[in-house]
Amino acid sequence: MALDPSLPLGVFDSGLGGLTVAREIAAALPNERILYLGDTARVPYGTRSAATVVRYAQACARALVQRRVKALIVACNTVSAVAIDVLRADLDLPVLGVIEPGARAAVSASRRLRIGVLGTAGTISSGAYPRAVLSLSTRAEVIAHAAPLLVPLVEEGWLEGDVPRLAIRRYLEPLARADVDVIVLGCTHYPLLRPMIEAEARDMMGDVSIVDSAHATAAELSQLLRDRGLVSTGRGDIELLVTDRPRSFAEVTARFLGDGPREVQVIDL
Amino acid sequence: MALDPSLPLGVFDSGLGGLTVAREIAAALPNERILYLGDTARVPYGTRSAATVVRYAQACARALVQRRVKALIVACNTVSAVAIDVLRADLDLPVLGVIEPGARAAVSASRRLRIGVLGTAGTISSGAYPRAVLSLSTRAEVIAHAAPLLVPLVEEGWLEGDVPRLAIRRYLEPLARADVDVIVLGCTHYPLLRPMIEAEARDMMGDVSIVDSAHATAAELSQLLRDRGLVSTGRGDIELLVTDRPRSFAEVTARFLGDGPREVQVIDL
Repeated sequence: MALDPSLPLGVFDSGLGGLTVAREIAAALPNERILYLGDTARVPYGTRSAATVVRYAQACARALVQRRVKALIVACNTVSAVAIDVLRADLDLPVLGVIEPGARAAVSASRRLRIGVLGTAGTISSGAYPRAVLSLSTRAEVIAHAAPLLVPLVEEGWLEGDVPRLAIRRYLEPLARADVDVIVLGCTHYPLLRPMIEAEARDMMGDVSIVDSAHATAAELSQLLRDRGLVSTGRGDIELLVTDRPRSFAEVTARFLGDGPREVQVIDL
Repeated sequence: MALDPSLPLGVFDSGLGGLTVAREIAAALPNERILYLGDTARVPYGTRSAATVVRYAQACARALVQRRVKALIVACNTVSAVAIDVLRADLDLPVLGVIEPGARAAVSASRRLRIGVLGTAGTISSGAYPRAVLSLSTRAEVIAHAAPLLVPLVEEGWLEGDVPRLAIRRYLEPLARADVDVIVLGCTHYPLLRPMIEAEARDMMGDVSIVDSAHATAAELSQLLRDRGLVSTGRGDIELLVTDRPRSFAEVTARFLGDGPREVQVIDL
């Protein structure tokens, strides 16, 4: 199927977190229209079984493809971890997840190939980051730990102060003990805590690099669109769709997209 | 419809939290069989719209009634807040929520009728606790605040240390400023943090009582079964049903029920 460069990019996540990916895409590709779907009726995916996540991801993908998009970006680590192959088999357009770009960026940023990963319980227990890293370098060692409190901290807006600082330090401890030199933010919520994670990690471990999967994904998407002649020359914007509670979604988008409340449309999957 | 005292009690919640209610019921009524349903495929309810919560609650209630129960206990503050009237209209058996018993216990424990409530965003924004308290005493003042991080703290098992302590102190601040003399734990997860909430509240406010809705609900259920001649004389037990991820549910039940892993059955709603 020939894809039209003027079509929007379809981006989806279980909820809000994927907006950090949408933000990075908008920054890297300012002429693209982004159609963002947050499955807020069924958030969070990070605590669901793999079979359930696959079913939900297929419904989200279908909703975006029906609205016509030129590529699908899975802006959710949990879905990227367990459903990306199924989506690629289902769909006749480029499908990009956040884990492979994050793993590639981590391997290229690491000198000693000791790579730490923080993520949700679902992403970590899937083993997807170790798998993706080891497919790039069999010499690499991956130390992955679940950090379940970081998502609620971001959603509560507690990005500064002792509560997030102490929680972050507790989650960084096993990575510090394992002497990693790169830490992957393996959840799309975490970039909002990046300044604090970076400061505490440097305090605990000295010289350590932070890799943000959202940023790495936008860079790979950029390359992919150029390679396939799919870059838009039109006017960029972000259209927001959710499956529940559009008002509260609109209120917190500012925290992720950095400006005032936006219009949010509710759809049924 | 005549109800058989030997039938089990149906108890449901969006997930794990309602196990604190089941535990209190088992303690107050040791001869009862409890059929507990945790809707883990769709947890949490606290962030959903009221219409969505009502739909989910009806599905849970149907699943328990089909298995034959003599009473339905809504062991979830969010469902009690928005769906209890619909469930009572739907069903031909006693339906007990956690909010009315919690409100009654708060009014009777408060000397100055200044009542603080902590709960999820869904429970607090429903206004159900202020409504229930004011229906008992028009002179009472209710100061209700959402404490969204406490559920993830309990599920993470961080019940001690600085992170929960500082989060709790931050959530108690508006209640301390409002000079309440009673604090209602308006979420079924919170009893696991009760020792810490109690200690910090006393440190910040001096003499203050903690009311646990789970405990108050078990006491009212006891009375209701006696009044209707529905008390069982058989052997008590708890049977666990969930809609997703039975293994991880089985692992954390110990934190709530205080013994080793139990058998958990998956059902589809």
